[in-house]
Amino acid sequence: MHLFFLLMTILLTAKLGAEICLRLGQPGVLGEILAGVAIGLFIHYAPVDVGSLAALGEDKTFVALTELGAFCLLLAAGVELEARDMLEASRRSMLIAVAGMLVPLALGAAVGAMVLPESPQRGAQILFMGTALAITAVPVAIKVLMDLGQLDSKVGHTIVAAAVADDILSLLLLAVLTGMINNGGVPDLATVGLIAGKAMAFVALVALLLRLNQARVDAFIEVLAVEERGFVMLLVTGFVLAVLAEALGLHFILGAFAAGLLFSRRAVSRERYERVKSKVDALAHGFLGPIFFVSIGLHLDLSALTATPGFVILLVGVAFLGKIAGAGGAAVASGFGPRESLSIGVSMSARGVVELIVASVAARAGLFEVPDPPTPIVANLFSAVVIMAIVTSMAVPPVLRASLGKRGEETPR
Amino acid sequence: MHLFFLLMTILLTAKLGAEICLRLGQPGVLGEILAGVAIGLFIHYAPVDVGSLAALGEDKTFVALTELGAFCLLLAAGVELEARDMLEASRRSMLIAVAGMLVPLALGAAVGAMVLPESPQRGAQILFMGTALAITAVPVAIKVLMDLGQLDSKVGHTIVAAAVADDILSLLLLAVLTGMINNGGVPDLATVGLIAGKAMAFVALVALLLRLNQARVDAFIEVLAVEERGFVMLLVTGFVLAVLAEALGLHFILGAFAAGLLFSRRAVSRERYERVKSKVDALAHGFLGPIFFVSIGLHLDLSALTATPGFVILLVGVAFLGKIAGAGGAAVASGFGPRESLSIGVSMSARGVVELIVASVAARAGLFEVPDPPTPIVANLFSAVVIMAIVTSMAVPPVLRASLGKRGEETPR
Repeated sequence: MHLFFLLMTILLTAKLGAEICLRLGQPGVLGEILAGVAIGLFIHYAPVDVGSLAALGEDKTFVALTELGAFCLLLAAGVELEARDMLEASRRSMLIAVAGMLVPLALGAAVGAMVLPESPQRGAQILFMGTALAITAVPVAIKVLMDLGQLDSKVGHTIVAAAVADDILSLLLLAVLTGMINNGGVPDLATVGLIAGKAMAFVALVALLLRLNQARVDAFIEVLAVEERGFVMLLVTGFVLAVLAEALGLHFILGAFAAGLLFSRRAVSRERYERVKSKVDALAHGFLGPIFFVSIGLHLDLSALTATPGFVILLVGVAFLGKIAGAGGAAVASGFGPRESLSIGVSMSARGVVELIVASVAARAGLFEVPDPPTPIVANLFSAVVIMAIVTSMAVPPVLRASLGKRGEETPR
Repeated sequence: MHLFFLLMTILLTAKLGAEICLRLGQPGVLGEILAGVAIGLFIHYAPVDVGSLAALGEDKTFVALTELGAFCLLLAAGVELEARDMLEASRRSMLIAVAGMLVPLALGAAVGAMVLPESPQRGAQILFMGTALAITAVPVAIKVLMDLGQLDSKVGHTIVAAAVADDILSLLLLAVLTGMINNGGVPDLATVGLIAGKAMAFVALVALLLRLNQARVDAFIEVLAVEERGFVMLLVTGFVLAVLAEALGLHFILGAFAAGLLFSRRAVSRERYERVKSKVDALAHGFLGPIFFVSIGLHLDLSALTATPGFVILLVGVAFLGKIAGAGGAAVASGFGPRESLSIGVSMSARGVVELIVASVAARAGLFEVPDPPTPIVANLFSAVVIMAIVTSMAVPPVLRASLGKRGEETPR
């Protein structure tokens, strides 16, 4: 795969898709995911030999660039948000986060129990379906909120706090799932407790850094002599916290988000804040972020849709229903209006790339090995989950735009 | 190799090196190359098992990031420079470019003829030594000029124009060399002519685009609705021209440089120019460029220095002498003062990464296979050339700083 051919194709297609969607009044990120779908369908079904493009999804460099894209998106979101607002929102949104996980988990497991045939792997498969529906894709929700100019609002804060909490909760769930696949049983409480403890240690460390942070960041940056010192400090802090998060068994995007929160309007001078923010935004929205969104759409494979269309429709329906009932219902209970609660439920419906990772882990562990006699649902479970992940990601931008309205003012670009 | 561990290590070490060098009054880029040397020596000679770090130089993702780094550096340089100034300088600097290639080529071949033993590969080895000395590393020269605030000056224009011309000429030389290694003889004139023709076609196309460009770029960008439209347009143009350059057998950095030239102060509004420039600079100097400079130092392997110290010293001495006599002498003949001419000669002495690529190509082709009886010079030729490439790259920043003086004013960071 030639690097510059890859980058040219992806960035050009992504921004063409974004341009078309924006002209149709839709958020640009929808166009970027659709660009990925177009490239994916082209790779799967093109009548011509696509050569090295066929292995794009597994290309090491491409995967690294998509990870950098997710990193930059969360870094930019952290920079835009105030830590104080997030702490406040996280209290308010704990119920939304927990209900937004548990309701889809139960619904997914119930659907699994209904449709899956008897087999030694049935227990793990049922848990996989629950996990698949319980996941929330943080970057997709955040990007749509940014596109709509609604990230820094009460609803925005709630969605981000709940989505971040769900990211941590889904890692606990994934640990239980992989334990069950590998050992054939539910892992003991000590294992799950250890993961939960590590996650809490990370959150506590970030909270401590945020408390120490005020005004010292600027003084430290001011001492440095290197070029682009503010931007470099932010990136390095992000990489350090990403490494730390991964070392603790968490997702690297939590480290990126934490680093962004540390670099806040209150920690640095206004001029430096604006300057560094414009650079991170360029990286996140103009270069690496689009590569990430293209990668979501890329994995689309329509085989499940032709083999078991009813199951796919059921899965997608339950995917929305679970999040809207769980997270949206909890939002109503927390005092949000019906329109805002719907927005919250829909925002948390996007599954995105984490879903694809979970499905790949399960696939590699042999969870989708077709039983004898073959059943079409197990044979197409992987493809169906991938379709669900992409469809929910694609649906969030237009639905959220309709329920939250368009961005307030044009920002300079 | 964990992506974020890799990025954290490289960016932190590079900027630590830059910080130390800047405090000692040296250009930051020297510190970034030295950081690469430190990492390289650590990998080679560390008493501990460095694990996956040992394969860093061959890691696909790392190599892709260094290529992106070189791309961004040339893009940023193109944005900073005016096409009109470059066209003017390229007339003035043609003599410098040609003499700056031919004198080191002859000197390198002469040294090769002196020291290399009789063998079937002697002819190709002699040409390799000439080529190794004839190469100029465009990014290193450009970065030092930027660090010193001297890129947009008469001397800066001359150095960049000559270095870019040398980049094209060295590709012709490399084609002759690989032809000689593969076929055992000098390739025919038609082959060399075809490569030269493609290079001229690329230059003609860029010149045509530059002529058409004035004022239309801004109007086109203004029509777009996507976020970061100016930045995205610049990147996409860069990727397209990089792909085109590679398709024509040229180096991708020529495409990046051309795209940067197209996005000029005269083509877009002042506000857009400043905004996009600050973003490209952040990418080039704060994130990907440092990775590129670290990669130069990384390959250092001191075996030749202990086995054949005299030969290494001779090689490094001739490397400087050839460029200072060739390019510097031609600069004197073109009317530059002695101090400026020395700066021009020294700037073009950096060999950098292209050299490492040439050496690797030659190594893979079996050019350094040790003859029987073994001679230490042939056995250590590869290592010696790598040392020469790194030493010349490291020497340029401090020498140029001494001859051209420090940067005029602090730019906002």
